[in-house]
Order: sequence, then structure tokens, then C-alpha cells
Amino acid sequence: MTDPFSKLRQQIDQVDTELVQLLARRKALVAEVGELKQAAGVPIYVPTREHSLIQARREEALAAGVSPELIEDLLRRMMRESYSAENEHGFQCCAPELESVVIVGGRGQMGQLFTRMFCLSGYQVASLDLDNQEQAKELLAEAGLIIISVPINQTDAVIRKQARHFNPQALLVDFTSRKSEPMATMLGIHPGPVLGLHPMFGPDVCTLAKQVMVFTPGRGEAKFEPLLQQFRLWGASLIESSPAKHDHMMAIIQALRHFTTFAYGSYLQRENIQLEDVSRFSSPIYRLELAMVGRLFAQDPQLYADIIFSSTEGKQLIRNYIEHLQEAVVLLDNNDIDGFIQQFTQTSDWFGQLKEKLLDESTALLERQSEHQ
Amino acid sequence: MTDPFSKLRQQIDQVDTELVQLLARRKALVAEVGELKQAAGVPIYVPTREHSLIQARREEALAAGVSPELIEDLLRRMMRESYSAENEHGFQCCAPELESVVIVGGRGQMGQLFTRMFCLSGYQVASLDLDNQEQAKELLAEAGLIIISVPINQTDAVIRKQARHFNPQALLVDFTSRKSEPMATMLGIHPGPVLGLHPMFGPDVCTLAKQVMVFTPGRGEAKFEPLLQQFRLWGASLIESSPAKHDHMMAIIQALRHFTTFAYGSYLQRENIQLEDVSRFSSPIYRLELAMVGRLFAQDPQLYADIIFSSTEGKQLIRNYIEHLQEAVVLLDNNDIDGFIQQFTQTSDWFGQLKEKLLDESTALLERQSEHQ
Repeated sequence: MTDPFSKLRQQIDQVDTELVQLLARRKALVAEVGELKQAAGVPIYVPTREHSLIQARREEALAAGVSPELIEDLLRRMMRESYSAENEHGFQCCAPELESVVIVGGRGQMGQLFTRMFCLSGYQVASLDLDNQEQAKELLAEAGLIIISVPINQTDAVIRKQARHFNPQALLVDFTSRKSEPMATMLGIHPGPVLGLHPMFGPDVCTLAKQVMVFTPGRGEAKFEPLLQQFRLWGASLIESSPAKHDHMMAIIQALRHFTTFAYGSYLQRENIQLEDVSRFSSPIYRLELAMVGRLFAQDPQLYADIIFSSTEGKQLIRNYIEHLQEAVVLLDNNDIDGFIQQFTQTSDWFGQLKEKLLDESTALLERQSEHQ
Repeated sequence: MTDPFSKLRQQIDQVDTELVQLLARRKALVAEVGELKQAAGVPIYVPTREHSLIQARREEALAAGVSPELIEDLLRRMMRESYSAENEHGFQCCAPELESVVIVGGRGQMGQLFTRMFCLSGYQVASLDLDNQEQAKELLAEAGLIIISVPINQTDAVIRKQARHFNPQALLVDFTSRKSEPMATMLGIHPGPVLGLHPMFGPDVCTLAKQVMVFTPGRGEAKFEPLLQQFRLWGASLIESSPAKHDHMMAIIQALRHFTTFAYGSYLQRENIQLEDVSRFSSPIYRLELAMVGRLFAQDPQLYADIIFSSTEGKQLIRNYIEHLQEAVVLLDNNDIDGFIQQFTQTSDWFGQLKEKLLDESTALLERQSEHQ
């Protein structure tokens, strides 16, 4: 490197060092806001504040000759960090009448996540697992909130087994990724308030800010609404649904998709594809798709077996999809390029304006991914 | 909002405004580096510089109580912006002996991208398209570099049609996403230097920094090596391959994957799935997968028809995959959860350590995506 290079690079390093200091200052200010929010019971994620903050800086960027997209991306990344950090301050308790909380299956990963969140909000939380069954009666009879967080195929049996111990006034909630059967069981067996919940995220998230949770109202809104308020305070985005609609959506989003991902991964193995080569030759898109496949196989097979095998509708969609593939492959057998283009165009029309949005979204995603290559 | 909130938010806004100013300063410095690089013929993307810059700031961040991952992500985003900006300064011309450049199909999107890049590096570039065929003889007889950038199913015919006009000393290159047949045609028909190229990215990229290009050497390394050097200067990452190996990889990465994405999209249409609902209920992972499907249908059907129908091996892999799905669905028919878990575990073992890497990669990706929700 010649001298003028070194000098400029030193100046860039100096700017970047200032950035580090600026982040430290921002972090301290955000921590103060977090304490105020905790005291005032304000949600950690306030969409209007996020929007107005970004807009103001975008305009300043334009005026300063800086890309508005750049400043927006940087601010969003910084805010994600802030949301995670705000967990440290704890949260106000929105539903003190639900104390104490008992999570059946609290030692599971999702159970641990919610135990942590409830504790941060000042609730007393106990876990009921296989190793402390002798406490079942004592814990459940005193509980204000009982959460069933066990695998789908055990949900029904666990509820039936423990129901005789439930405090009849307690709010009964389940976290299962199906809703019809658990809701029917809970409403049938428990006289008190009932709520179905499906956290649409994995237990490894750092913050609940912007995370989606689907809820299916059972009975006793006066009791479950404060709990939903608690989730909103944690930053979650709540979607109301009927159990049937939820399960229909999950047949597509989970059962069908996870099965095809499973089948694709096991197919790569069957053909003994050299993953290293594939990885080396990958376009950014394929790398991303491969990441989604590898991700599945890095997780618990039982979880995916539960999701796929528990949905009758999902199994039927999978069969229909394979039938559809067999029909589509006829296009290849007949070398029917015109037919392919015709089908492609029809589906493209059916996607409507959403496809352009999805194209933009995926392009932005691929660009972000390319930063890390 | 109470007063202490407003005051803190003003202070945060002040910090963010300083960030905008800092970015403006950094941009000016990067522009100076860009000019020096242009003059010295240094590649715009220097992995070692990027690595050492990030490491130094990570350590400073740790010392200042700031998350090292945060500063790394911000720097990577800023550097992506810099790479795009460096296009503005132009690039040194690495292969003046290849002038002038003729791109057959230069009006196509990929042709336009490379026309722009060659112009930025001081080459004279002409396009030969359907509307200026009368110039074919004149342009091609004088060309130092002839690039064939037309759809796969036209590549062979176009080369054969134009070959009689080629300057016999010119370097002949094709951009097709298959390599075996075009390489055979080019080597058979053209006595001069030959190189096969497959840009593994779409024509909408802002910069070639970190983008992958596969090349298959034909003949005349002395002529094509300076062209590869030019691509390296643009920041591209080059992978050498034989035509057969490349085509085998693309059968998996492109033909099979694009076909299953096509079939999945047309299946959603067949079941008349309400995309709005699906979108609303989506977990971040499914949203990402849906984005990849919508992305396909927002693009040119002919392009995908070409990729899928031109690969005999790809067509066979697709048939094998459907056969595999039919075998896998037997697990569902028999409610064979143990069999599913056994197959899952085998594939998981086969993925080996790569799966953990892919899990981390996808988790980071999903977190970045959640910022934009």
C-alpha cells in the first residue's frame, strides 16, 4: 500500500472508531429510555416512533448526500439491538391477577423462554415437568395462569391428566402449533377462562419485539386480555384467529412446507450430492435455500414429526402437492415449453401485485446476505 | 409522552443526526480511496482489508461495551454501499488488447449490465442485436472480445450464424447458464481463444463485489486471463470448473430447484390459497420462502423454461425427486413417525457439521429480516 492509501484508510478507521463511540452513547440513552418505559408500562416496540425516527434521518441523509436506504438499514439494525437490550430492564406486570404462573413443560426450550419473560415482568413462575409431578396438585391449585407447553401429541393427555388439579378460576393457555383439538379439550374440561396461543417463532429469539403470536379466544376475555397486553408490552405482534382458520393456515405454512424441505434434504442425501461443491457453486439464492434445508436438519426431528403427522389436512395437502408435481412433470416429458410458459404466466397473474413486493423483499434480503459472504 | 421521554428521544435523535454526518464524511473518504484504486488498478473488494477493519472495530466495541456483532453488521452494510459507489469512479482497463468488445444480445438485461461495466473500465463496447444485424460483419471482424449473451436455446444457432464474421484472433466468450454444449460449439467453430462464463447473479445487482462467476477455460489462457483479471478488479469471485461439472451442479442448483419452486407456486394457485392470509400468519421463515416463490413468478418465464428444459440431467433429477417424494409420503400413509425420525436423523448425520453452519447463517438472516417487518 502506498502512502496516500494508508493515510485515507487511517482517516476511515478514525471515522469508524467514532461510530463505535457513538453507539456506546446511544446505548446509554436507550437504556435510560428502557428504564422509563419499564416504569410507565410502555411497549418496547412503538411502530410510530420507529417510523418517524427513520423518516427524519432519511431526509437528513438526502440533504447530506448519503443514501436514505443506508441510514434506514443502519438504524433498523441499531434498533434491533436496542429491543434486545430492553429485556435487561424488565417489564411492567400487566396481569398481576394471573399470579402465580405455572408452565407445564417449563423446562422445554419454549417454556424456558417464557419463564424468563414472565420473571422479567415480575411474575412468580413455576415449572411442572416429569421430575416434579408430586408438586402438581399444590402448584396447579394455586395457579392464576396455567400454560401447557408440551409436544402436540402429548397436549391432550397432559391436560386430561392434570385437569383435576387446576384452580377452576385460573386462565388456561396452550402453546401448541395446532389449535382445534387443544381448544376443544381445554374448553370441555376447564370451567374457567381459556386462551389458545401459537408463538410463531423459535425459542432462540433474543427479543419478542416484532415477533408474531396467533391467539384463539376461548372464554373469559376479561382474564386473557391483560395477558395479551403483557405480550404487547414485550413487543409481540398479535393476530386473532379461529382455531379452524389457524389450523388451515398451518397445514400450508408448516406441514406441507416442512415435509417438502425434509424430502428435499433426504433426496440430496439419496443422490449423494456433494454438499461442499454445491455450496461452492451456489448463487446467493440457492445458498439461502440450502440454509433453510440445513436449518431443518439441525433441529429436533420430533418437533417436525409432530407438526407434520398431527395435521390431517396437512397430510392431504402433501398428497395433493405430489399429485400436482406428477402432472407438472408431464410438461417436461413432452418437452412442452409453451405449456410451461402458459402455466407460469397464469400463476404469475394469480400472484398479482404481491409478486413484485416479494421480489423487492427478496432482493433486499439477498443484498443483505451478500454482505456476509 | 412525558417530558423525560421527549428529552431522551431528542438526545437519541441528536446521536443519529451525528451518524448521518459521519456517513457523509466516510463517503467522501471512500470516494478518495476509490479514485486512488482506479488509478492504481486495485480491486474494489480487498478481503484482507475488510477483515482487519472489522476485527479492529470489534475489539474497540468490546472495550466500549458495545456488541461486536452490531458494529460488524453496521460496517458490512456501510462497505456494501462503498462497493456500489466505487463503480462511479470507473475501473482500470486490464485487457486493452481485447478492444473493441462486441456483446451479441447486448440489449438484454445481462448484456446491459456488462456493457456498463466494460464502459466504466474504458472499453469500447458495441451491441449486436436483432435490429442491427446489418452491422454484424463490420462489428465482429474488428472485435477483440465477442460475448454471446442470448437465451440458452439460441446460443448454438447464434454462434453458428455469426461465426463466419468473427475476427479469428478474438476471444470468444458465452454467458450461458449451461457450459457443455456452448463450449463444444465455440471450440469447434472458432480457431481463436475461447472462454465459458456463467455469472451466478441477476442483472439487477448494484455491484459485482463478492458476486460469483463460474468460468470454464477453453483455449488461449494468455488472452482470457486478463479478462478474468478485469472481473476480479470489479470485485467478482471467480470459480474455475469443467463444463461437465458446472452443468451437473446447475442441474441441482437451478433446474431441480426452479422446477420445484414453479410447481409449489402453481400448486398454491391450484388450491386457491388466500395469499393475503398466508402472508399475515407467516412465521419469518415462511415469509422468506414465500418471497423466494413470488420472486420466481415476477421474472421472465422464458428464462426459467430455458434453464429447466435445456438440462437433460436436470429433468432426470426432477423425476427422481418426485419418485423420492412418493416414497417419502408412504411414511405419512402408514403414520410411521419412527420411520420419519429415522430418515430425518440419517439425513441430519449426512449434513454433518454443515447443518450447524447453515442454522447459524439462516438465524442471522431471519434476524436481519425481522428488522424490516
